[in-house]
Amino acid sequence: MTRPLILISNDDGITSTGIRKLVELMKQLGEVVVVAPDGPQSGMGHAITVGDTLRLSETDIFGDDVEAYKSSGTPADCVKLGKHRVLKGRTVDLVVSGINHGSNTAISVLYSGTMSSAIEGAIEGCPAIGFSLCDFSWHADFSHVDEFILKITRETLAKGLPLGMALNVNIPPKQNEDIKGIKVCRQANARWEEEFDERVDPNGRKYYWMVGNFVNHDKGEDNDEWAIANNYVSIVPCQFDLTAHHGITFLNEKWDL
Amino acid sequence: MTRPLILISNDDGITSTGIRKLVELMKQLGEVVVVAPDGPQSGMGHAITVGDTLRLSETDIFGDDVEAYKSSGTPADCVKLGKHRVLKGRTVDLVVSGINHGSNTAISVLYSGTMSSAIEGAIEGCPAIGFSLCDFSWHADFSHVDEFILKITRETLAKGLPLGMALNVNIPPKQNEDIKGIKVCRQANARWEEEFDERVDPNGRKYYWMVGNFVNHDKGEDNDEWAIANNYVSIVPCQFDLTAHHGITFLNEKWDL
Repeated sequence: MTRPLILISNDDGITSTGIRKLVELMKQLGEVVVVAPDGPQSGMGHAITVGDTLRLSETDIFGDDVEAYKSSGTPADCVKLGKHRVLKGRTVDLVVSGINHGSNTAISVLYSGTMSSAIEGAIEGCPAIGFSLCDFSWHADFSHVDEFILKITRETLAKGLPLGMALNVNIPPKQNEDIKGIKVCRQANARWEEEFDERVDPNGRKYYWMVGNFVNHDKGEDNDEWAIANNYVSIVPCQFDLTAHHGITFLNEKWDL
Repeated sequence: MTRPLILISNDDGITSTGIRKLVELMKQLGEVVVVAPDGPQSGMGHAITVGDTLRLSETDIFGDDVEAYKSSGTPADCVKLGKHRVLKGRTVDLVVSGINHGSNTAISVLYSGTMSSAIEGAIEGCPAIGFSLCDFSWHADFSHVDEFILKITRETLAKGLPLGMALNVNIPPKQNEDIKGIKVCRQANARWEEEFDERVDPNGRKYYWMVGNFVNHDKGEDNDEWAIANNYVSIVPCQFDLTAHHGITFLNEKWDL
């Protein structure tokens, strides 16, 4: 039996603990090829490299048995490079991204490079999953994630996903209590409210740090914020069709075009 | 009567022809404040600046009667800076972005900095519109866009949009024939298929240019690609909730979690 071909990327860069963990786990399930950014790309959203060149070079960072490449590109670029350059002509059975150091619940899905890799996989017609651990520390404890990542990945490989769908999986941080289970959720209506911390550089010119405060207005119990707050792994199935279909009705009925 | 407060951004940068045109048009409808990138940011998607500083400086590029700022940030950063720094405490009645030099139909909405500005406006709770002209030339002819941009903006100011909605407006390039009208559409199921053009630098190292071929698999007549191909202005109402609700049913029914 042929082993499934799994393309791995991330947004924290190829040297992060999270991607090393993901490579270890995926090696148990299939043939692994890694194409990941050569440095941190957090917050890159669905950026792609337009009007500039890309670098791509092989690396043995994951040992001799894992084909791996680092790239100057964004997380979305890396999936495109993996699919259309490195694995050109081969069928990719799964695209996985992460494990992100930090939560990608709620609106963060839009800003997340991790989820952009996964969504790019879905655009390419591959089943795709982005994994995030809700712990921003570079030295986050990943010791409790194995069973959930293996289970969700096995289900995806066995049963597939509807075309054009990418899963946004968030895992609660390591706590004393065991994780309660897995919840399929909708994206919470929670967002970042920004403030700007103004400072003055050594030349007397102003600059700013963006300081985000995460605010949850969503009182539902069927969303990813609720799941994480209650120590469940959350899965939000995501799509790349942004059409607000109720908006079509609204515009046709209310507007005079 | 108070004039509406309109925040303008773009992704081609503050010196582009498109944003100058948009400022001229919006001045007819309200009080205009511009916060735009200091250079081109095409393809930046919904990137935000994480782990780095931001610059913001006032400019008189649009004359003495328009408050305007250029920023080192992404299109999404610019809207955050506009709302939470420049206009802190004021109600923004409308966020507009563009006019983009080039099409943002179909899947391009995900990669587009223009649309990320608009969607960021919607996340902030403001009615928002991204305008794109389907002509990538820096010297694109914008002479036919006025009536459509004014009409769509007036309707938005008069009748509002459902909360969390941003309009993706694409305008056909200037042609001999007049534009036929405006169509409210869904996002076409068309995407970029990538190839990588491999070259060798003066030091003997390989590098790549991403070359995208736009492929339309969507035979419908209710999508934005059809509208543009048939010389209509397209409006796709967009949302930032990426939840694929049919995916929740799929996972709960088919998967063993």
